Amino acid sequence: MNNFQFYSSTEFVFGKDQESKAGALVKKHGGSRVLIHFGGGSVIKSGLLDRVKKSLDESGIFYLELGGVKPNPRDTLVYEGIKICRENNIDFILAVGGGSTIDSAKSIAMGVPYDGDFWDFYCGKAQIQAALKVATILTIAAAGSEGSPDAVITQESTGLKRGAGSDLIRPAFSILNPALTCTLPAYQTACGATDIIAHVFERYFTNTTEVEITDRLCEAVISTMIKETPRVIADPNNYDARANIMWAGCVAHTNIVGVGREQDWNSHGIEHELSGLYDVAHGAGLAVIMPAWMEFVMSHNVMRFAQMATRIFGLPMNFENPEATAKEGIRAFRRFLREIGMPINFEELGAKEEDIPVLVEKFGLNGGKTGGFVALSSEDIASIYKIAAHASL
Amino acid sequence: MNNFQFYSSTEFVFGKDQESKAGALVKKHGGSRVLIHFGGGSVIKSGLLDRVKKSLDESGIFYLELGGVKPNPRDTLVYEGIKICRENNIDFILAVGGGSTIDSAKSIAMGVPYDGDFWDFYCGKAQIQAALKVATILTIAAAGSEGSPDAVITQESTGLKRGAGSDLIRPAFSILNPALTCTLPAYQTACGATDIIAHVFERYFTNTTEVEITDRLCEAVISTMIKETPRVIADPNNYDARANIMWAGCVAHTNIVGVGREQDWNSHGIEHELSGLYDVAHGAGLAVIMPAWMEFVMSHNVMRFAQMATRIFGLPMNFENPEATAKEGIRAFRRFLREIGMPINFEELGAKEEDIPVLVEKFGLNGGKTGGFVALSSEDIASIYKIAAHASL
Repeated sequence: MNNFQFYSSTEFVFGKDQESKAGALVKKHGGSRVLIHFGGGSVIKSGLLDRVKKSLDESGIFYLELGGVKPNPRDTLVYEGIKICRENNIDFILAVGGGSTIDSAKSIAMGVPYDGDFWDFYCGKAQIQAALKVATILTIAAAGSEGSPDAVITQESTGLKRGAGSDLIRPAFSILNPALTCTLPAYQTACGATDIIAHVFERYFTNTTEVEITDRLCEAVISTMIKETPRVIADPNNYDARANIMWAGCVAHTNIVGVGREQDWNSHGIEHELSGLYDVAHGAGLAVIMPAWMEFVMSHNVMRFAQMATRIFGLPMNFENPEATAKEGIRAFRRFLREIGMPINFEELGAKEEDIPVLVEKFGLNGGKTGGFVALSSEDIASIYKIAAHASL
Repeated sequence: MNNFQFYSSTEFVFGKDQESKAGALVKKHGGSRVLIHFGGGSVIKSGLLDRVKKSLDESGIFYLELGGVKPNPRDTLVYEGIKICRENNIDFILAVGGGSTIDSAKSIAMGVPYDGDFWDFYCGKAQIQAALKVATILTIAAAGSEGSPDAVITQESTGLKRGAGSDLIRPAFSILNPALTCTLPAYQTACGATDIIAHVFERYFTNTTEVEITDRLCEAVISTMIKETPRVIADPNNYDARANIMWAGCVAHTNIVGVGREQDWNSHGIEHELSGLYDVAHGAGLAVIMPAWMEFVMSHNVMRFAQMATRIFGLPMNFENPEATAKEGIRAFRRFLREIGMPINFEELGAKEEDIPVLVEKFGLNGGKTGGFVALSSEDIASIYKIAAHASL
């Protein structure tokens, strides 16, 4: 096991009607002038925004609103948010929505006290040294941004999708009410579930040995997702299944399932180019990429994939042929993805094989390699896109 | 799933040599005048105390020392610590040791700013409203106090052992270096492991349905303990096995394996009277009590015990007779405890059957009932002591 630091300082407030505590929680965490940040009309139509504003009013907290966050959130709205915050002495950003809204809010929070262009944090030109406080009221179980120190933003002019992170942008508090996710359509629910599972797999496949506790915690979260997701697809109003998924998604990204080990985020990186180019849902892109990545790297550690197959998918171990078990595990994962309505190849996703060179170019390895489990070259990335293009059950 | 709040604000710094960061961490968390609190000679002999003092010196931090904490820590030393802190304007308590030392430190921390007797917090006469900051350098994987908001103290004059808790006494940081636990004798190591497992079982047995994620996380932690503990007993210097146990013990008591559900802490309560009366190790007492409690309450929910048997102990499910599987699970637990060198009945523990009325009296139900899974009367508690007295494999 490797040395590590784990510091998940977010206060999670979980359950029915908890959004009514928003005002009291902002106050508790030192906010006085709030920017409420959200996406489209659903938080308005559902009445959620009104309930949040009522709660802030009751606590006597000043607020402004900035809506309009889109999936794969853009830098352009972040610049707008930074301007509003500076002009109005905002000291607290309250994101009401899913991962895109939260990531946009985190970006505004890091941008306000920074003299330069906030994109510096995303292209590696600068490290975050200060940020406004951020908090969240989550409406989609997916990104895990409600408990993570990370954010992902797309630069509109170039289509580049990049990530940045710091403990300074961990949410001060996150309100998780599973009932708010019940209106989410099946497709988006499944995309979210796939993202949650991917967040754990990216941590599960490691070359670090002797991390049984983290392995078992990974398997716990994915096993829960395998059980609960089809229940929610079949019955969108199943509160308890929604609750299990919502908390699993949060636990998945606090990094408690990733400590003490090297991780490998190549599937996310390879997918980011897909959703950056085609504007498809991140989770759908992962459904196509992740099993393809698994097939490509499987031979690096067959026993780890056999462990996945037996411990997560409950498959029998083939002791004479562990590779057969490993392959069965990946097949089981694709079957699960198909069962919950996810695409499993380029055609189903709406991607084109002839764009592979563009995707690889945007990935931008420039002759180098990347990855913690298996280091991949541009040629390897192209091979994974190719497997993904043609995948079947 | 029930509504819950989860707020584990402790910064965990895990791995080899991390105690050298003590000074920097105290500073980061706002401490300037420190009381170093510890137990017997082992932290002195091992050189750990000197390394901690060196680290504080390097950060220019003033400190005093108070040693002498005993297992099942006493109120008497807490009063002494409170006096020292008040006379010297101490603002930060650094516990160097195991759960007893940490609990003693937490009690000093809550006592210093309180006008009355700190025991008020333990006998239910007052709620903690303020506390000095506490941090820990852990030397024994067991109590989980390094990541919990709880403490347990024994009143010397009466032998009463009671608990108190508040987020205010959660450690600001905890340094967990598994190498520090390698010198721990096998018996104490096994006692610690038993305590860790009990912390999870107390959360696992619940009447709350639909908490799959928490169930799975519980099973992850216990499965890890079942695998790693015998390795450490066989090879005390196995760093990786020590590391898995140390982090499992911490995760077990942050309550991440207990959220969203009713819990049942009767095994701990029933055991506390044993270690209060005989001064036996808490973990050894739990090894005797916990399986006895399981046998007594099993019929309340046979399928939950069958789930334990199959998911944790890997036993085959007897579909024609789930009760047989449930019983096999409890037997497997006792076999595991025996394997790691724990007592499994009163005689092996050094307790006396004729003291059962005294134990029940001290438990102090006064005609009431207690428990979240099965509510127990004084008669039930006596029955559990009786099963524990005579238990065999």
